[in-house]
Amino acid sequence: MRLHNLLFITGQFLLALSLTMLIPLLLDLEAHNPDWQAFILSAVLTALAGIMMIAAFRGEIAQLSLKEGFILTNLIWISCCLFGALPLAQADIGLSYTDAFFETVSGLTTTGSTIFADLEKLPPGIILWRSILQWIGGIGVVFMVIILLPFLRVSGMQLFRIESSDTHDKPAERTHQLMKNIALWYMFLTLACFLCYRLAGMGFLDAANHAMTTLSTGGYSPYNNSLGHFNSAGVAWTGITFMLAGSLPFTFYMFLSSTFMKRRPPLSQIKGFLTLVAMLSLFATAYLMIDKHGGLGHSLTTATFHVVSLITTTGYALEDYGLWGHPVIGLLFMVTFIGGCSGSTAGGIKIFRFQILGQYFSNMLQSLYFPKKISVNMFNYQRVDDTVIAGVILYFSIYFISLLIMTFLLSLTGLDFISAISSSATAIANVGPGLGEMVGPAGNFADLSDPAKWIMVAGMILGRLEFLSVIVIFTPAFWRA
Amino acid sequence: MRLHNLLFITGQFLLALSLTMLIPLLLDLEAHNPDWQAFILSAVLTALAGIMMIAAFRGEIAQLSLKEGFILTNLIWISCCLFGALPLAQADIGLSYTDAFFETVSGLTTTGSTIFADLEKLPPGIILWRSILQWIGGIGVVFMVIILLPFLRVSGMQLFRIESSDTHDKPAERTHQLMKNIALWYMFLTLACFLCYRLAGMGFLDAANHAMTTLSTGGYSPYNNSLGHFNSAGVAWTGITFMLAGSLPFTFYMFLSSTFMKRRPPLSQIKGFLTLVAMLSLFATAYLMIDKHGGLGHSLTTATFHVVSLITTTGYALEDYGLWGHPVIGLLFMVTFIGGCSGSTAGGIKIFRFQILGQYFSNMLQSLYFPKKISVNMFNYQRVDDTVIAGVILYFSIYFISLLIMTFLLSLTGLDFISAISSSATAIANVGPGLGEMVGPAGNFADLSDPAKWIMVAGMILGRLEFLSVIVIFTPAFWRA
Repeated sequence: MRLHNLLFITGQFLLALSLTMLIPLLLDLEAHNPDWQAFILSAVLTALAGIMMIAAFRGEIAQLSLKEGFILTNLIWISCCLFGALPLAQADIGLSYTDAFFETVSGLTTTGSTIFADLEKLPPGIILWRSILQWIGGIGVVFMVIILLPFLRVSGMQLFRIESSDTHDKPAERTHQLMKNIALWYMFLTLACFLCYRLAGMGFLDAANHAMTTLSTGGYSPYNNSLGHFNSAGVAWTGITFMLAGSLPFTFYMFLSSTFMKRRPPLSQIKGFLTLVAMLSLFATAYLMIDKHGGLGHSLTTATFHVVSLITTTGYALEDYGLWGHPVIGLLFMVTFIGGCSGSTAGGIKIFRFQILGQYFSNMLQSLYFPKKISVNMFNYQRVDDTVIAGVILYFSIYFISLLIMTFLLSLTGLDFISAISSSATAIANVGPGLGEMVGPAGNFADLSDPAKWIMVAGMILGRLEFLSVIVIFTPAFWRA
Repeated sequence: MRLHNLLFITGQFLLALSLTMLIPLLLDLEAHNPDWQAFILSAVLTALAGIMMIAAFRGEIAQLSLKEGFILTNLIWISCCLFGALPLAQADIGLSYTDAFFETVSGLTTTGSTIFADLEKLPPGIILWRSILQWIGGIGVVFMVIILLPFLRVSGMQLFRIESSDTHDKPAERTHQLMKNIALWYMFLTLACFLCYRLAGMGFLDAANHAMTTLSTGGYSPYNNSLGHFNSAGVAWTGITFMLAGSLPFTFYMFLSSTFMKRRPPLSQIKGFLTLVAMLSLFATAYLMIDKHGGLGHSLTTATFHVVSLITTTGYALEDYGLWGHPVIGLLFMVTFIGGCSGSTAGGIKIFRFQILGQYFSNMLQSLYFPKKISVNMFNYQRVDDTVIAGVILYFSIYFISLLIMTFLLSLTGLDFISAISSSATAIANVGPGLGEMVGPAGNFADLSDPAKWIMVAGMILGRLEFLSVIVIFTPAFWRA
């Protein structure tokens, strides 16, 4: 194994991470906030670690093997979480390292669960750093899902292998071009979101923070009442639009702008996703109008906002939907599992898996009474082979069993059942808020015990890396191979 | 389609059902209880329906096709539920037909959820009828799972096809012999259970009622406090022993006594199941001793009893384990999903599916970094082919999605989240009690709205018939075929 190659690449990521720490540093310096020292210290430490790794392991990067791909993925995420937590741990805001690490993992995985009871007391640099973590995490996930996972052939992701990539002459050059293209679109959409928030009346910093956490479907907000703070339909609809934009496959955007995509765009997922969002939003709107006697405009805005916020796994709230009554809670709990499109910043099980499961299930039912019939599963105009289907339905099983085990483990720490099951669901889907008084949209995760926080951290990372990419490196056979 | 064959067979089942109504009839007559009129009326109606069907559709029974197998399965279950509810609906105990039907389905599916707030006020005939329903349901499930499902090739059940059956000269004769063998073992074990309960100090009727609902892993008890009523370690351990006996595959018993099984006995499932039960019981015992400062004997008895009661999907209780604290609730919620061995009276996902999933998952992880390696999945000394594996992992997905949808539907009826999710889980696993004040072990299902009761009925039937056998007949293509 060429560990030096992997450490060299990880070093580059750490160096980049240290540079992003300079932005909140400048903000705190300008605000004469003593926290700038925490940022400079963290930036120096992170940069040192990065530079040492680059210097020590400098060299030509060979084409990575599958095994190296798995190790690299885990290495980069863990390193960024460890070093990204430094500013939060060192700033004078009373966080233990567990809390700082929890908040950072929740940020980088774009989950958005917070341990801060009162966000509005935090210095602007820390607030901005939380938003930057989510923004970095968002683009990190898109890179990982589009470039790396299809080659690792896990959970049906091989479906998204970009055909031309197998035959391309210069794979490294092509990967760089792909990353540049994704990054440009990500920045463009963030900027557009920022401008819309500004037009809707947000201040400069608020708009910047929210644009970063909207597009990454992360959901951190500088306000305790989340986007409800602004009490503005313009803000709500901007949020809806760009949470959805962040949940569409980035390959779709690239298709709009480049010659990368020689085949048809990933419209199956997008159509299915938007249809589902529309149906669920209309249902929730009707419920709010009938049961809570709300006006059409207000009901449509709040219902759509919360459906979109949870299905895109963002986790913003306009109000405490935990008080809306049991039918909405049931709906939103179900929605938590669905998630956005694959190749986006959204978490959850993802739309394409439901589509492939549905099609396979329907073919399977037919084969029960036509045993001789051979069905072909199609997705987005291409044939879906059996290993993809097995990966997809296996993913549901892993998701389900992980949910049960994590609920049990959280119960062991003394957490009540409703907090335990909703915290598990929200962590592995990378959503953010749970259900119940403690971890619901009006609560926070501060009162969880340290073991419970570490279980949540594990759940967030497992969910974000789609389980298998993490689990595989914990098998002894992997290291013997 | 030879509908006349199917109706002829269903008629025979109804005739048999009407005969069983004579037992509580005699009991109520002897107790001078006016409810005997409800039983005689129900018995006459059921017998008439059965005799009419037999007379009208009498004839040689041809070998059934797959499609006819599905229809027959559903037809028999639904007819028995409809007619089995007659005594409860007609007796003077204030039940609506919805309530009577709920109680009957809960009985025949061996779920054991009850709508009676005070069981101890019920006449002995009604109590006995509830137990008989579970006893019939128990043997019905074993027949269905061992004889019918393997041929329907659903959810991995084809794994349990008895090899010689394909080549046997006289399939009908062999099926009769198989059914006779199963029935003898079922009766023998029930009798053994009855005697043990008697030895442990139970009265004649109590022992009869409990023997029937123990072996069928149904869980109906004549007492509001379930088996806790007796406050006896002897009763508890008899319960533990025979709940486990009901959860072992009946093919194992047949192996002990006959020449049916030419291959090795189904030991993989049994070993896995008993090991898991022992581990979970020890864990719960340790928890009760440490956290609740219980003595070893009492902790071991109550912990083992409740683990066994829920993993075998019986649903008996010695005390309200809802008060034992969050870790136990988390454990027992997880256990609810596991279930017993296939080919037994127990519900849930079943041990063999976890075993096959585990093995497939581990092979799959290896194939991630050894892409060329071909793994063979083995179970109980036989090769497991790909359609079995696909059926098994698909079953987890269906189970998980059904749980989410059912939780959502129950929330729509106004049920709170914890009652909704635990009622869904308990219905599709055919366990019985849920969580929370309302539907927990100390509560009952009387206060559910009528729509919620019908959703529960659907969940119990879906779970008992392993989903696909029901879902398939609701697809239009099935009827076009």
